[in-house]
Amino acid sequence: MAAILHCSITPNLPSSVHSSLTTYKPMHKEQSYWASINSDIETHLKMSIPIRSPLSVYEPMHHLTLSAPRSMAPALCIAACEVVGGHGHQAIDAAAAVHLMQTAAYTHENLILLDQQKPNLAAHHSYDTNIQLLMGDTILPFAYELLASSDDSTGNNSHKILRVIIELSQAMGTQGMIDGQYKKMQRIGSDDRLIYQVCKKMEGELYSCGAACGAILGGGSDNEIKKLRRYGLYVGLIHGMMLRGIGLGRVKEIKALALKELHYFKNQNIEAITSLVDARLFRSSS
Amino acid sequence: MAAILHCSITPNLPSSVHSSLTTYKPMHKEQSYWASINSDIETHLKMSIPIRSPLSVYEPMHHLTLSAPRSMAPALCIAACEVVGGHGHQAIDAAAAVHLMQTAAYTHENLILLDQQKPNLAAHHSYDTNIQLLMGDTILPFAYELLASSDDSTGNNSHKILRVIIELSQAMGTQGMIDGQYKKMQRIGSDDRLIYQVCKKMEGELYSCGAACGAILGGGSDNEIKKLRRYGLYVGLIHGMMLRGIGLGRVKEIKALALKELHYFKNQNIEAITSLVDARLFRSSS
Repeated sequence: MAAILHCSITPNLPSSVHSSLTTYKPMHKEQSYWASINSDIETHLKMSIPIRSPLSVYEPMHHLTLSAPRSMAPALCIAACEVVGGHGHQAIDAAAAVHLMQTAAYTHENLILLDQQKPNLAAHHSYDTNIQLLMGDTILPFAYELLASSDDSTGNNSHKILRVIIELSQAMGTQGMIDGQYKKMQRIGSDDRLIYQVCKKMEGELYSCGAACGAILGGGSDNEIKKLRRYGLYVGLIHGMMLRGIGLGRVKEIKALALKELHYFKNQNIEAITSLVDARLFRSSS
Repeated sequence: MAAILHCSITPNLPSSVHSSLTTYKPMHKEQSYWASINSDIETHLKMSIPIRSPLSVYEPMHHLTLSAPRSMAPALCIAACEVVGGHGHQAIDAAAAVHLMQTAAYTHENLILLDQQKPNLAAHHSYDTNIQLLMGDTILPFAYELLASSDDSTGNNSHKILRVIIELSQAMGTQGMIDGQYKKMQRIGSDDRLIYQVCKKMEGELYSCGAACGAILGGGSDNEIKKLRRYGLYVGLIHGMMLRGIGLGRVKEIKALALKELHYFKNQNIEAITSLVDARLFRSSS
């Protein structure tokens, strides 16, 4: 869906960004590919979180999940699964879980930021802080439950799902988004080098995790998983930097590093996944 | 260890509790059994959360985990595993995860309660609210990572671990502890019936989950898992009611229901697990 595709990746991009994306061309085919994936994820999320009793819990959970800022990390999860030869539907629960993790982190980050300057990307919730606190705590276990429940009755997929759970936990945890939030919390606003670290830990880890999870579930080899994990890290870094409008002089260099990781897959259909380095593709068209 | 065994289960018990536990006898053998299990869990937690870099994250995580109020739910996880014929060490990660879940919930509940009346059981942290928020968010994924990583290289145990992850997620989520916290947040202080619901959702779900997880990992049948899950619910309910000093007239009745679930295991060694209904066994001796 357009709403989820044209998300908050590049709001109010500085003009310097455009010049750094010298290879940008309108890629309608790829845009359509990502829109279709995002639509599937949106539908899956809506089905997974029905509004049921107790309404006081499910309604805000449903609302926060669907109104939280989006990234392309969940879609990258599906795309990575397909690059290694899997079918996208094998990674749909993991993709939804990636979005849920991001939602939980965002919901709680809003609380940290309450007494600090709100960034432009922060939506304003109508829920009080206690509800936001509880909702973050609800969404996280729900993401794990969704994933763990995706095991088929034969249990043949169990080991892969556990690997995905480890990837997600590490992306969320002390070496990942929590570390990014901690750095962010320390009001490191004006120091570009530190904001770069925040982008790496936040969007970088999230995209990296999304790509690795998709590759695991698609049956990728360890080497394929490793390369897609690194590709995700670079793409997330680019998207994070563009989101914050910092370090834009480095985008070209990071883009080259990202594309280098994809050389390994040159015989596969990588047109769509390659397009993800061009974050301008995902800017709001509204 | 005594510190973890003699936890906050029955602080300042009203005298009516003692009279309701008419079958209480000093059970040194059982006390020693639980102390030994709790010591193993404490050691495992200490080893699992080393104090390493970044210290700003690991130190509070380590401290909060080890200083949070304890319950007997993790020990029940080990005991349930043994009742169905498993070895306690098969359930040690799950037991640690149960404690970590409880710690995460407690850490965030402290934030909810900041502008409300603090119950006697709440410890006072020296960390600011943002750190407590981040720590809760760190501890939860860490619990899942610990569990998922406990899969052996053959992957034979994967399906069981995924079942445990579902149990834990449900105990934490919208039908479990979150629902309990939501009810608690609504300041339902004086209504015994509602506090009973809180006990059921908080301690009840936690103990129930602990028992079910242990039974799953020990290789219990569906029926055994079901019975131990219900036993855990009743024991948790008793411990929760005694902790809050409410509904004590119902303890005897609930205790009978709990013991009924154990009839099924009459040919197994259930002396120790049976002793858990006598919450006075676990009162502080300090």
